[in-house]
Amino acid sequence: MQGNTQTVAVIGLGSMGFGMATSLLRAGFDVVGSDLSAEALARFQAEGGRIASGPAEAAGQSEVVICVVVNGAQTEDVLFGSGGVAAAMRPDTVFAGCATMSPAVARGLAERSEAAGIHYLDAPISGGSVRAAAGELTVMASGSAAAFSRAGASLDAMAAKVYRLGDEPGAGAAMKMINQHLAGVHIAAAAEAMAFAAKQGLDLDKVYEVITASAGNSWMFENRVPHILAGDYTPHSSIEIFVKDMGIVQDMTRAARFPAPLAAAALQMYLAASGAGLGGADDAAVAQVYARLSGTRLPGMD
Amino acid sequence: MQGNTQTVAVIGLGSMGFGMATSLLRAGFDVVGSDLSAEALARFQAEGGRIASGPAEAAGQSEVVICVVVNGAQTEDVLFGSGGVAAAMRPDTVFAGCATMSPAVARGLAERSEAAGIHYLDAPISGGSVRAAAGELTVMASGSAAAFSRAGASLDAMAAKVYRLGDEPGAGAAMKMINQHLAGVHIAAAAEAMAFAAKQGLDLDKVYEVITASAGNSWMFENRVPHILAGDYTPHSSIEIFVKDMGIVQDMTRAARFPAPLAAAALQMYLAASGAGLGGADDAAVAQVYARLSGTRLPGMD
Repeated sequence: MQGNTQTVAVIGLGSMGFGMATSLLRAGFDVVGSDLSAEALARFQAEGGRIASGPAEAAGQSEVVICVVVNGAQTEDVLFGSGGVAAAMRPDTVFAGCATMSPAVARGLAERSEAAGIHYLDAPISGGSVRAAAGELTVMASGSAAAFSRAGASLDAMAAKVYRLGDEPGAGAAMKMINQHLAGVHIAAAAEAMAFAAKQGLDLDKVYEVITASAGNSWMFENRVPHILAGDYTPHSSIEIFVKDMGIVQDMTRAARFPAPLAAAALQMYLAASGAGLGGADDAAVAQVYARLSGTRLPGMD
Repeated sequence: MQGNTQTVAVIGLGSMGFGMATSLLRAGFDVVGSDLSAEALARFQAEGGRIASGPAEAAGQSEVVICVVVNGAQTEDVLFGSGGVAAAMRPDTVFAGCATMSPAVARGLAERSEAAGIHYLDAPISGGSVRAAAGELTVMASGSAAAFSRAGASLDAMAAKVYRLGDEPGAGAAMKMINQHLAGVHIAAAAEAMAFAAKQGLDLDKVYEVITASAGNSWMFENRVPHILAGDYTPHSSIEIFVKDMGIVQDMTRAARFPAPLAAAALQMYLAASGAGLGGADDAAVAQVYARLSGTRLPGMD
């Protein structure tokens, strides 16, 4: 709580960034938020945060800049686009990129950042908005000792666990993509298995009870199948997130000449869900694609 | 311990059946074992069990017959083949089929059993040999009230948890196949992700540490990846088991007109492992197929 005298900028006050910014506030940091949405800024101000007119204004007054946008392209734009923060940041300060992106993109951003005199921390996050708000995220970070020493206290304030994966930018991003690869396959597998259970006429609540106590369980099965059982696809994390993340996995595996048939099959199912108009629905809605393709009825379907 | 006065036959004293039979002994049952292997019979006798010259001799003196063979075809042979137990069993006794098989096969065996005057319990098991020996299996059972009332005490002696899935034979088998569907996909996904992590040069022990604490985790990832890290493919459960079980899933989904692209992709990888000569190795050896196909080195590979 005490001793955190740094000023930290949080760029992007969405469902993840907002929770991270308020966790930093609780830990005693001076936090400046930036977001395109006036509503998000007002919400953050109401929590006691300071706001800036744009990313560069927030970054120019900060020792650490935490960038919580959607992907690598947005991160690049925040750093080096028109009005980008790289030009505004003071020498020797740290930019932490938290978006999910390919390791190659992270390495490129790190190189350009270091050339501009700032430290880059490759710091993707995991855990969802509830854990973000509680300051209990998982951070998978890699970067120089200088970057870690300057940003370490901020990371600790936002995360239950900070994995330090060495001094090479890209290792954090690579680890996050391994997690997304598995998570994306497991959600699609949960949907495939639950729709097939329905097709066979099994009691779906009983299937959930048995599988979560058996060797077929996964973190995602346990977390997402309740959405299928309730027929409630209010988005916690949307289909489009996995269209994006499994797309990154496909680009990476193709470039690496690494055949990944399970990830490829899962991506096709997310594409089918998005193509069928479910892109904005919860990612568990991939179960509806299986149901439609097989004439099976799931809870909440007509 | 006390009050279990039934005589129970256990047909098949392999890694699962042996543990189940000794669990029944510990619970006070009079247990008669049958197996093709003289060595298995001697081991069981050394544990205090009685042995029979064949399945029919064991079954003819028992109230409950527990059949722990490899698949539906072997179960059918035990029941109705030459020297089959159906003809030897007394009226109103119970035959419990514990092998993994398709629901249609289980339903067929149940019909023929009931016609022969015996009760059929569709009772697939899950948990592995260590839990079998401890009497802590999971049983996914369906069958008539008569079958449950006669075999219930035996099931309780062998299992930490007995799921009662209704009175229709086939429901137990269907539930087990949903578990195998997920388990088979998750092992292949773990192998795919770990080999891809190796291809990217990540520290594999660190990947295991991070993923088991993250949303990408699965029961199978946590259980099987240590075999990959150790480069030790001594079979706990072999590749051929999933060639068989994912083959059953493929037959079921094809017959049901249910597209299951993840299960299909996983089956191809088990077939590749078997075709490459790894059929008898631990199922985690599917990781070696990914490594060979991508020029990646995993622990224990030259």
